[in-house]
Amino acid sequence: MSGAFSFGILSVDPGSAARRGRITTPHGTIETPAFMPVGTAGTVKGMTPEDLESLGFEIVLGNTYHLALRPGEEVVRRLGGLHRFMGWERAILTDSGGFQVLSLADLRTITDEGVGFRSHLDGSLLSMTPERSMQIQASLGSDIVMALDDCPALPSPRLRILEAVRRTSLWARRSREALLGPGQALFGIVQGGDDPGLREQSVEEITALGFDGYAIGGVSVGESADLSREVVALTAPRLPPDRPRYLMGMGTPADLVEMVALGCDLFDCVLPTRNARNGTLFTSTGRLSIKRSEFAADPRPVDGECSCPVCRRFSRAYLRHLYVAGEILSMRLNTLHNLHQYADLMRRARAAIEAGRYAEFLSERSARWTDRRREAETARPADGRQDCGGGDRMI
Amino acid sequence: MSGAFSFGILSVDPGSAARRGRITTPHGTIETPAFMPVGTAGTVKGMTPEDLESLGFEIVLGNTYHLALRPGEEVVRRLGGLHRFMGWERAILTDSGGFQVLSLADLRTITDEGVGFRSHLDGSLLSMTPERSMQIQASLGSDIVMALDDCPALPSPRLRILEAVRRTSLWARRSREALLGPGQALFGIVQGGDDPGLREQSVEEITALGFDGYAIGGVSVGESADLSREVVALTAPRLPPDRPRYLMGMGTPADLVEMVALGCDLFDCVLPTRNARNGTLFTSTGRLSIKRSEFAADPRPVDGECSCPVCRRFSRAYLRHLYVAGEILSMRLNTLHNLHQYADLMRRARAAIEAGRYAEFLSERSARWTDRRREAETARPADGRQDCGGGDRMI
Repeated sequence: MSGAFSFGILSVDPGSAARRGRITTPHGTIETPAFMPVGTAGTVKGMTPEDLESLGFEIVLGNTYHLALRPGEEVVRRLGGLHRFMGWERAILTDSGGFQVLSLADLRTITDEGVGFRSHLDGSLLSMTPERSMQIQASLGSDIVMALDDCPALPSPRLRILEAVRRTSLWARRSREALLGPGQALFGIVQGGDDPGLREQSVEEITALGFDGYAIGGVSVGESADLSREVVALTAPRLPPDRPRYLMGMGTPADLVEMVALGCDLFDCVLPTRNARNGTLFTSTGRLSIKRSEFAADPRPVDGECSCPVCRRFSRAYLRHLYVAGEILSMRLNTLHNLHQYADLMRRARAAIEAGRYAEFLSERSARWTDRRREAETARPADGRQDCGGGDRMI
Repeated sequence: MSGAFSFGILSVDPGSAARRGRITTPHGTIETPAFMPVGTAGTVKGMTPEDLESLGFEIVLGNTYHLALRPGEEVVRRLGGLHRFMGWERAILTDSGGFQVLSLADLRTITDEGVGFRSHLDGSLLSMTPERSMQIQASLGSDIVMALDDCPALPSPRLRILEAVRRTSLWARRSREALLGPGQALFGIVQGGDDPGLREQSVEEITALGFDGYAIGGVSVGESADLSREVVALTAPRLPPDRPRYLMGMGTPADLVEMVALGCDLFDCVLPTRNARNGTLFTSTGRLSIKRSEFAADPRPVDGECSCPVCRRFSRAYLRHLYVAGEILSMRLNTLHNLHQYADLMRRARAAIEAGRYAEFLSERSARWTDRRREAETARPADGRQDCGGGDRMI
């Protein structure tokens, strides 16, 4: 199935389950652990491909549901696929549309056949079966294709989670049987909510099918940060060690460093990009809301330890001014800064694993984030995972 | 008055009044004829300083009225001046606030003392006298300061234009007597509407005061494109040949090449940046509205002759998709393209003057722009010069 796709582990941390790996795709390699910026509609909001390259990202995420509606996968296919369409020569992972089962709950009906969506754009009907999702992702030509899954919110009745596990396995099998493009890898997704037994069952069923990689889905969907971590802690070690593990849609900086320690390799979250547009900036010690009046004449950079192009050139006062004035440059500079913070964090995490001192790195970072707990909580509004992984919304 | 400011003419075209010059400022040189992108609120919308540098711009425009209201000139001064505040190391010209006499006509009262504005942001009062305008521009630390002028719309009764000429001279004298910062140059502004006699009178009065450069104000304020050109044609030759001539707020590509032929050296207009945000792109042969459905699957670049970073990497289909999806990257890429077109046009104009074949260049360009007339007309909505030079508005 995988063609040019492969995954190798370069080193393993002695004090944790963290691993330093490398994914090879038809569009270059990805050093793992890695963070994938979210490019919902064929663009990571406000960033050019050059921006993302110079920040050091090797893979971005595209949204199957959103791209199928607009501009339509046929347009993307005719223009040479998503890489060429968006001018991005490195790797792309596309989600399957399964997450919209949750994020667009009011606009869909779900059966064993698939999900029927009423377009959030024009009300037209889109039927997302496993076969259709694979077909769209084949047209998009992403390097990593995700199987269609059924992703319930938390809390959900046990019966609903049971149904989702059964249906996710059914759809994984049908996704597995569909025809993909040359070189496209396919990842399976594990569900099971917060029920250890169902998680275990889902892992067994999905891994039995044999995928190029495995994703932990159904986390950061409304539950507490502690519960998310428990679910990952019990799921990750059960996944095949020789395949990449992708933790879907969970991603405060504190989450990332902890989940790397549990053996996760790939991450995505809209937090750095969406927060940037809302004026919330990540720093090496926590968060900073650039709109606050105390920064009106503050000549310092956002983060004195940061080497990003924004911190090298602009003051907090200027960034506050751009935000308050509603300038589009505000969104661009804030996004550049936040994505640099994420890229830099992952670079440091990889170096710590290589040096065999990841456990130290984790405790050093956790100590810095004094407001870590609050941070983890504010990352999860009532609509849960809608905030992460479901596509990066306008502003 | 000028300190480090100087202007030299490098060559003169034999077949027109076009001149190839060089302005020296404390923040570098400006090869003229030159176009100045409009950076209303301390940013050319969507562009970083690096973007503007790599497009080749050597000077940008800042708006005194807008910056005085937000973030306030005292904040800018404390942060080291406008250059440092916005991270732009090259030259800056600031307008005087005089244009808001016209663009914010509903919010101001005007007497010989100055203009009283009711802030468009919070309703507070701002009194813009010549002395106050000079003080603000001194705090901003721009390289070229503009005298305060009284700029009436066209058509206006002859008595109103007469009053504006008288008041502009009065204010020019008071602007001239105010204290500026070290190295700041001061330009006077000529008014006179569409009345040849009053234009002549204004030129005499303003030039008699002695400025580092001269601007032609009061054009593109509601009159036809033909009338604007007539006014420039009769005003420009009367200005001192050894000082730079700045044509304020007039700037379709066709305008620029024609006005260079009349001996103008500096230009500004919001057209390339504002049009970009509205999806109108300039090309070597005219204009293109990227939102049109015919581009939905068009793999070609916006302009096959264009060497800008957008045309090198992205298709019309992708740019249309970004526009239709309301992506902020749309505004950024469109602005990059349009500003590149303007920078490139001025580079070619300068080369044509150096080669002594500007008249040929002018007729070659005019022939390309088959839709030139329509273009000139659509550039001037009913609210006239509000569209140009009055500050680049949101979206």
